Amino acid sequence: MINWKIRKDGFDYNKIAELGNRFLIGNGYMGVRGTLEEFEKEQLVAVNLAGIYDQVGDSWREPLNAPNGFFGYLEIDGKPYRLPEEEPKSHSVELDYRHGIFKRETVFKTGRGEVTLVCERFVSMEQIHVGAMRFTIRANFHADINLITGIDSDVWDINGPHYKKVSMDEESMLNITATSEEKEYQVSVVADEKTDFPCEKKLYQERMKSLRIVSFITDIDREYCVEKFFAVYTSKDTKDCYKAAKEAVSRALNQGYEAMLSEQKESWEKLWEDAEVLIDGDDRSMEALNYSEYHLMSIAPRHAESMSIAARGLSGQTYKGAVFWDTEMFMLDFFLMTNPAVAKTLMRYRIDTLDGAKKKAKEYGYQGAFYAWESQEGGFDACSDYNVTDVFTKRPMRTFFRDKQVHISAAVVYGICRYVDFTKDDSILIEGGAETIIECGKFYYDLLQQKVGSEKYEIHDVIGPDEYHERVNNNGYTNRMAKFTFQAAVELIKKAKSEPERFLKNMDQAEMEQLEKAFQDAYEKIYIPMPNEQRIIPQFDGYFDLEDTTVEEVRSRLLSPKEYWGGAYGVASHTQIIKQADVVTWLSLFPQDVTENTLLANWKYYEPRTEHGSSLSACMYAMLACRCNMPEKAFPLFLKSASADLQGGGKEWAGLVYIGGTHPAAAGGAYMVALRGFAGLRFENHQVTVKPNLPAHWKGMKFRVCYENEKYEIEISQEQVSVQKIRSLS
Amino acid sequence: MINWKIRKDGFDYNKIAELGNRFLIGNGYMGVRGTLEEFEKEQLVAVNLAGIYDQVGDSWREPLNAPNGFFGYLEIDGKPYRLPEEEPKSHSVELDYRHGIFKRETVFKTGRGEVTLVCERFVSMEQIHVGAMRFTIRANFHADINLITGIDSDVWDINGPHYKKVSMDEESMLNITATSEEKEYQVSVVADEKTDFPCEKKLYQERMKSLRIVSFITDIDREYCVEKFFAVYTSKDTKDCYKAAKEAVSRALNQGYEAMLSEQKESWEKLWEDAEVLIDGDDRSMEALNYSEYHLMSIAPRHAESMSIAARGLSGQTYKGAVFWDTEMFMLDFFLMTNPAVAKTLMRYRIDTLDGAKKKAKEYGYQGAFYAWESQEGGFDACSDYNVTDVFTKRPMRTFFRDKQVHISAAVVYGICRYVDFTKDDSILIEGGAETIIECGKFYYDLLQQKVGSEKYEIHDVIGPDEYHERVNNNGYTNRMAKFTFQAAVELIKKAKSEPERFLKNMDQAEMEQLEKAFQDAYEKIYIPMPNEQRIIPQFDGYFDLEDTTVEEVRSRLLSPKEYWGGAYGVASHTQIIKQADVVTWLSLFPQDVTENTLLANWKYYEPRTEHGSSLSACMYAMLACRCNMPEKAFPLFLKSASADLQGGGKEWAGLVYIGGTHPAAAGGAYMVALRGFAGLRFENHQVTVKPNLPAHWKGMKFRVCYENEKYEIEISQEQVSVQKIRSLS
Repeated sequence: MINWKIRKDGFDYNKIAELGNRFLIGNGYMGVRGTLEEFEKEQLVAVNLAGIYDQVGDSWREPLNAPNGFFGYLEIDGKPYRLPEEEPKSHSVELDYRHGIFKRETVFKTGRGEVTLVCERFVSMEQIHVGAMRFTIRANFHADINLITGIDSDVWDINGPHYKKVSMDEESMLNITATSEEKEYQVSVVADEKTDFPCEKKLYQERMKSLRIVSFITDIDREYCVEKFFAVYTSKDTKDCYKAAKEAVSRALNQGYEAMLSEQKESWEKLWEDAEVLIDGDDRSMEALNYSEYHLMSIAPRHAESMSIAARGLSGQTYKGAVFWDTEMFMLDFFLMTNPAVAKTLMRYRIDTLDGAKKKAKEYGYQGAFYAWESQEGGFDACSDYNVTDVFTKRPMRTFFRDKQVHISAAVVYGICRYVDFTKDDSILIEGGAETIIECGKFYYDLLQQKVGSEKYEIHDVIGPDEYHERVNNNGYTNRMAKFTFQAAVELIKKAKSEPERFLKNMDQAEMEQLEKAFQDAYEKIYIPMPNEQRIIPQFDGYFDLEDTTVEEVRSRLLSPKEYWGGAYGVASHTQIIKQADVVTWLSLFPQDVTENTLLANWKYYEPRTEHGSSLSACMYAMLACRCNMPEKAFPLFLKSASADLQGGGKEWAGLVYIGGTHPAAAGGAYMVALRGFAGLRFENHQVTVKPNLPAHWKGMKFRVCYENEKYEIEISQEQVSVQKIRSLS
Repeated sequence: MINWKIRKDGFDYNKIAELGNRFLIGNGYMGVRGTLEEFEKEQLVAVNLAGIYDQVGDSWREPLNAPNGFFGYLEIDGKPYRLPEEEPKSHSVELDYRHGIFKRETVFKTGRGEVTLVCERFVSMEQIHVGAMRFTIRANFHADINLITGIDSDVWDINGPHYKKVSMDEESMLNITATSEEKEYQVSVVADEKTDFPCEKKLYQERMKSLRIVSFITDIDREYCVEKFFAVYTSKDTKDCYKAAKEAVSRALNQGYEAMLSEQKESWEKLWEDAEVLIDGDDRSMEALNYSEYHLMSIAPRHAESMSIAARGLSGQTYKGAVFWDTEMFMLDFFLMTNPAVAKTLMRYRIDTLDGAKKKAKEYGYQGAFYAWESQEGGFDACSDYNVTDVFTKRPMRTFFRDKQVHISAAVVYGICRYVDFTKDDSILIEGGAETIIECGKFYYDLLQQKVGSEKYEIHDVIGPDEYHERVNNNGYTNRMAKFTFQAAVELIKKAKSEPERFLKNMDQAEMEQLEKAFQDAYEKIYIPMPNEQRIIPQFDGYFDLEDTTVEEVRSRLLSPKEYWGGAYGVASHTQIIKQADVVTWLSLFPQDVTENTLLANWKYYEPRTEHGSSLSACMYAMLACRCNMPEKAFPLFLKSASADLQGGGKEWAGLVYIGGTHPAAAGGAYMVALRGFAGLRFENHQVTVKPNLPAHWKGMKFRVCYENEKYEIEISQEQVSVQKIRSLS
């Protein structure tokens, strides 16, 4: 049986950053790291906001962290008791990931006795601006307690400080309104608490904090509960965000903690109804997988019409809070299969940022749409030309993610096509998806090179998924995705020609004909690297000429553990060692391109040569392993993906740049492997079928999926398989 | 009046390496660094041999240094007196660069008095295997002298030791025969000395040295002369090199030092007859220029049919003793104008290494001939893929000189065409020059890329002369040189069609037609970057997008003085700061490509953005400055080129790789500037003309040049200019 809870006993200073990710709570609007209430920015506290970015000077633009409305700590007999300064007698944290509820329990020992502090908290799924918390305090002596509770606007920033102005209004409610540096966004946080026992309260301000002391003397072993609510609104949400926050807190105070907790549980139960995956025979996998889904649901932009998900979710400002190809290639399937409305929101984000992509293309002298490698508001590419800091010289290193990782536009096309295929909802094409596909097609067409006298169309000077090899020619994955884009564009134009009133209404016939011809020509002539005699496809031109060595050997050459493996001179750069699935990603997406033997040969060749230095890697290998009937080979890779955030231990540094946080793409990848890999789910010809290929110790699976506006329940046991349509969506 | 001598008084330990270059003597067969007789490998002694290379393990292949036959030192009253260990009372070195004679004079102070040691030495221009030396010893007391003289086979190697076996024969002559590691070349050095006063002699061996002690007691203030001769032969020269060396030493002993010295002076006088350049009004320039010519003549392969000159001449193993584009683009003019036979020898080297160039092209998957960036025997490319060592990590850095500096093949074509134009001797085309041009044309044709749908032919992913910017597209210089190659190939085919019995006899008509058509097409369509509105030609695609800063600013960013400025992350790499003339080299070669205003605008733009980090840079700027009628701007750049070896202070390090040595390309460049720039020499329509453009303080010039098998004497004064044919060569 699934436990639905994770717990960590004891306090370890060195685990603060890791637990902040692992015990994250979120509701799509905000994510709150699993840090303790008394922590401040040094402990990487963050109330990370979705889709609102700010830049300070020439530093990287990144999402705002809101002032922390969960801030609070105890004073006992006049002395503060706070971790990490104070060693606790006992301590534990717990996350109920069925319902997004975080709890900490700490016993402090004083000269006079013991005081137990329990804080339970969540950010509401129903009232997305609101966080709720309950402090419970108990002492085995007559303790003189000051509970300091408040809002801390001295927030953790990677490239901050983002608030150039912080104001606190003299009202009875705690409040902070902060104004951001670049765009002058206002972020208002209001908080108030409720007590049902006699106490003294006093408002005060200190070091960018709006605080209240709640003072009382405890009876022996009696529990004192303080309920606290806060609300966050930004000027992007509403004009008067301070007022909105006050009203939200008032409503919450009326509703009370218990009622809001019930509402929270109900909301999550509704989500799990479509998302829960039961695995018979492997609790560990089941827990890891559902925990992964928890993270995806915690950060899904359920509240927005057009928004995407950052590569590190809502776990902080790492990776600039930007949207990568992760969304389309790794997370989209989960939402398509559990919550297509969210999938549509994700795709709308790309359509709405088409202008940004066209602008970026133009900036580089290209036609069409070149999507941002690290996409922020409006499709602005947050990716810097210097995205890694050299460990040895501390200098920024010129990287080429922004200008050469051209496969991003194809990922967008892939996502849109997949959405339409899966949902049969082609409204998204009419809303701008059709134009997006055409513009991406133009972009790839403009990248095509041919050797004088040759008929072969090539794409040079790119970075593929394996980022350790920069500026390569004819990266198989990239060329294949470009070919896919040409195909999608040709099919779209055909569709538009037969339904001219619906699609591409603004494009004239001649242009359509010309583009169809060009895209068809490109589709036919684009060079796709072929397998060699050993059936291995070279990842790019000249790949086989590189040193053929092992991941261990390459690792042993590191002079610093934080050293970047890629770039021009990285330890992997001139070897066949790759960061992540590249050819295997291609083959995982398009297995029909080659024979079964070739699929297998490439898996076997590339797997031992892959560092899996990206959390996007293992799941692609697992997918292809399933396709090659090797569920046992897939299993550890699946578990690695599913446990990316549960285990911790992922890469925290690229050069000197901190890249820690949660890994929603790995979570999405694990889901794909479980359902499409092991369960063998297929969606073809308007039918859902399963062809299970479970690891030997899995006795069965049970889950639901959405497809073409219907919902299905699938049950796999050792005896039989059932696919049942349970109801229509809409 | 010219002094013809340089001298350095006093002894400075830190100048040992620099003086080794500045006081070099050579005869084309070998170069002997201007180090002292008692020096050993720690002081970078080298008897550097031309055109014979050896490799140890995986280290770089480099030319052999022969055992040092000039080795010797004094013992006075039983105690050795050697620099640098012993502080001399006075010390000086002198080079008579009119005749290639090195002399050192040192006074040692002992407890009993003073002893003066004078050594005069030269390597014979007439007997290229022989070195001759005269020790002169004088004491102002009855000194007990041991003159230790011998051969030192414990030679300086950069990537050695190269001798795996050293044998010494028990004969009366000093002798060492050493066997090289890789190719098992034998190098025999035999030496003997001649005394005309009573003394005791004893042979012995010590630490890889074959030695003799010559012992005597001095009369007060009497001079004791010991003549010493050595000969070097290798197994590349003759089968029994030991025997040949013994015979050469015997002959030298018979001839005697004085006779050989006269012969030496005569030989050099003959060379100067055609090379001397007199400048009226600027002795400093005149001396620097003739000193530069001295170096070129000291390393010219006068003895060979087919040989070229290493980038650091015969000053040691730096740059692997390899031949670069320096020969064709910087040194060739000097030899064409003073000694066309040497020019032919240089060009034959390229023709004879065509196979190596074809092999290299094939290795990279190209058609035609891709000449070695660092050419050794047989056209073997000594350039490593890792040619620079990173200062910070001590790791080899992947560099692209070998694979991307494709302009080298065009330099070969340019050299051949220039030789034929200049001498009207087209025998070199028949000997293989024609095939060389065609193969280089094929190579460039195979590099041509076009964007799908475009008619423009481009060349991508190259390094131009400015090596600080790697892997650029459409480097103007490279594209222009490729265009030149296409033109040369088309003209050659036309010539071959009209004289089918003489040229390209093995090519059938159809192939000729097909190639002519392709080359003509390429000539017409190859993209040559155009000036922008400010008339500036971008050095490559995107050059103007790079940071526009100053050389000083870039230099200030260095963290280590030995740091490489280029590569992927060098301080110059992402700025407009360039290493050396690039667009300006193009415009200096083909000024008629653009208007006069454009020439000037580009000079003015690029000059302050050039580090002149290569000794090849200043002369090209000086050439173009002359072309733009700015002799005063040209002058300091000319003087810099002419003084490259006279002044020292050039770059000695690229990363952690030692690159010090002499700079024959700068010497050749200085000669070009003086004659073609300042004197305004033109060779057109079978006529020699001058259009002087002298720096204001130059009152006149006088020199001789060869052209089309005739010799001319040119005299420029403030009043008049005369060009006189003085005799026919042949």
